[in-house]
Amino acid sequence: MRPKLTLKQIAKELDVSISTVSKSLRDSPEIGEDTRQKVQAFAKLYNYKPNNIALSLKNRKTKTIGVVIPEIVHHFFTTVISGIEHVANEKGYSVIVCLSDNSFDKEVLNMEMLANGSIDGFILSVAKETMQKGDYHHLIEVVNQGMPLVLFDRSVEEVPSDKVIIDDVKGAKKAVQCLIDKGAKNIGIISTVDYISVGKLRTQGYTEALQENGFNVNQKSILKIENMDNIESEISAFVKESDFDALFAVNEHFAAAAVRAVRDKGQKVPDDVQVIGFTDGELSKRFIPSLTTISQHGSRMGEEAARLLIEKLEKSPNEEESYKTIIVETGLIERESTK
Amino acid sequence: MRPKLTLKQIAKELDVSISTVSKSLRDSPEIGEDTRQKVQAFAKLYNYKPNNIALSLKNRKTKTIGVVIPEIVHHFFTTVISGIEHVANEKGYSVIVCLSDNSFDKEVLNMEMLANGSIDGFILSVAKETMQKGDYHHLIEVVNQGMPLVLFDRSVEEVPSDKVIIDDVKGAKKAVQCLIDKGAKNIGIISTVDYISVGKLRTQGYTEALQENGFNVNQKSILKIENMDNIESEISAFVKESDFDALFAVNEHFAAAAVRAVRDKGQKVPDDVQVIGFTDGELSKRFIPSLTTISQHGSRMGEEAARLLIEKLEKSPNEEESYKTIIVETGLIERESTK
Repeated sequence: MRPKLTLKQIAKELDVSISTVSKSLRDSPEIGEDTRQKVQAFAKLYNYKPNNIALSLKNRKTKTIGVVIPEIVHHFFTTVISGIEHVANEKGYSVIVCLSDNSFDKEVLNMEMLANGSIDGFILSVAKETMQKGDYHHLIEVVNQGMPLVLFDRSVEEVPSDKVIIDDVKGAKKAVQCLIDKGAKNIGIISTVDYISVGKLRTQGYTEALQENGFNVNQKSILKIENMDNIESEISAFVKESDFDALFAVNEHFAAAAVRAVRDKGQKVPDDVQVIGFTDGELSKRFIPSLTTISQHGSRMGEEAARLLIEKLEKSPNEEESYKTIIVETGLIERESTK
Repeated sequence: MRPKLTLKQIAKELDVSISTVSKSLRDSPEIGEDTRQKVQAFAKLYNYKPNNIALSLKNRKTKTIGVVIPEIVHHFFTTVISGIEHVANEKGYSVIVCLSDNSFDKEVLNMEMLANGSIDGFILSVAKETMQKGDYHHLIEVVNQGMPLVLFDRSVEEVPSDKVIIDDVKGAKKAVQCLIDKGAKNIGIISTVDYISVGKLRTQGYTEALQENGFNVNQKSILKIENMDNIESEISAFVKESDFDALFAVNEHFAAAAVRAVRDKGQKVPDDVQVIGFTDGELSKRFIPSLTTISQHGSRMGEEAARLLIEKLEKSPNEEESYKTIIVETGLIERESTK
C-alpha cells in the first residue's frame, strides 16, 4: 500500500516551506499562481486530502481532545494539562497532547496529524515562532472548517475562537504593587522579548504600576531575555549592574536565577533584595527561600478551556456561532522571598 | 449516527470494571463464563470491535508514535519525551502523548484510544496502580496483536517487549559510594514504597553499597514515602529523628525537601549533612545549594526507545521476532549539596 502523504513530504519534494504548501492547498492569495498550481497538482497526483477535517467531523465523534502546547518543561503547561484532563475525563473525553517545541512547522504538522480523524477539537497555546511570524492561517483554517478551537495563555486576536487567558497586565501590576508596598524603591524586571505576548504584557503591567506610584521607568531596569541557554549569566550581569532592592521575574526559572545572582553579588533575599516570580510551580514552592509569586492558576485555565471546548462540541448545530474569552484572575502567593 | 462505544461505556452499562470488560473481550480464562458471555454479547450488539489494532496495522501507516506516561510533573518524563521527539522527528514520525495519571483504568483506556488507528506503536512507562495490581494483560495483548511496544523506566518482566531502563541498583550504589567516599558515616535514604520498581531497586542499591563498605543497614534509616501530599512533613520528621550526616533521595523533589528539613533542624548542607538526589531536572540545577545528583539521562532513554520502536516498525515482516533491553548508564553530577 502507498503510505499516506504528509504536508512535510510535499514540502520536501517541491522544495518549498510547509507554510507554502499549507497555504497553497487552501488557495491563499498570499501564494503566487505558479506555486499554488504546482502544489495542488502534486497533492492531487498523490491523492492528498487537506480537507479531512470536514470528513472526520461528519463521520464520527472520537470523544478525544487534542492539546498542542509549545513546551513541556514549564510547570505552567503541565498544570494546564492536569486541568484539561480533569474536566475532560469527568465528561467522558480522552486527551491527546502534542508539542510544537515553539516551532511554526511542528505546530502546523501536529495540527494536520490530529485533525485527520484523531480528535474532535483543539486546545492550543501558540508557538513562539508562530507569534514571531504572525502567521495564523492554520488556526483560522481549522476554525473555518468547523472544528472547535480554544486558545489559552499565548492567545492571538487574529484568530476567531474561544480563549482562556489571564490578565497579565493586572498580574504584573499586583506583583510590582506588592514590592512597592513592602518598601522597594528600585525595582528591576526580568522579562522575555516582546513578541512573546505574555512577556510584553507583563512588562507593560510593570511600567504602569511604577507610573501610577510616581516612579520613573528606567530602560536600564528592564531585561528582556531572548536566549534561554544563557539566562544565568544574563541575569547575573543585569543584577550586578544596578542597585536594585527588588526584582520581578516573569517566570519561576528567571526568579530562581535572580535569587542566585543576588546571592553571588553578596546580598541577601529578601533583606537586601526582594524577589517575586510568576507561575506557581514546584520550583517556587521547594526553593530556599521559597518564592513569592503571582499564581496563574494553570489548572483552572485548563479546566475552563476544556469546559469551553466541550460546550462547543456538544451544542446543537443550529445554535449561532459565538466566541467567549474567559479571563482567569491571578493571585499573589506570599512566601519567603519578600519581606 | 450512533456514537462509538468505548470500553468505559461497556463497563458502566454492565456495572463491571474496565479490566473485566477488557479481559472478557479477549477471552481471558480469569473471567467467569457468565460475565464473559454477557460482555461479549453486549459488545456485539453495539458493534464494538476490540481488534481494531490488526485492522489499523493492515490498512495504514500513521507515521505516529503513541507515548503513555504516568505523570507529567516529573522533569524526568518531560526529558524522555524530548528525546523521543528528537529521534522521531528526524525519522519523519510524529509523537502523541497521553497521561495515565498512574491509574490502571486510564492506562487501559488511553491505549485503547490510541491503538484505534491513531498510531503505529507504543512507548510506555507503566502506571503505579498497574504495578500494584500486577495486571499487564492490556500490554501483553497489544504485543500479541502485532503492535510494537517499548517499555521504559518503569518496566515489567511479565511483558515481552523491547525495554529501555537504567541500572537503578548501580545508580543508587554510585550515590551512596560517593557519600561514603566524602566521609559520611550515617546515611539515610528517602525512597518510595516498594511496589514502585525504581524505588525498590534504588533502596536495594543503597543497602548493597552500605554492606559492601562494612556499614550496618538500619531500618530506621530508610524512609518509604507513599503519600505525595505529605512529603515535607514526613521528611522533616525522618530527618529530625536520626543523626544523619548524609541523605540519598530517590528523586529531586525529595532531595529539595531534605535540604529544607536539614536547614529547619538548624544544620547546614553540605557541611553538616550532605544530600544527593536522583534525576537531573531544573530544580536540581537552580536550587540553592544546587543539588548533586544521579542523572538518569532521560533524553537519551527517550532517544533509545524511539530508535527501538522505529526499528521494529520498519523491519521486514519476515524477520524473526526478538526483544532487546537497553540499559542506559547513570552518571554522577557533583554540585553544591555534597562536599
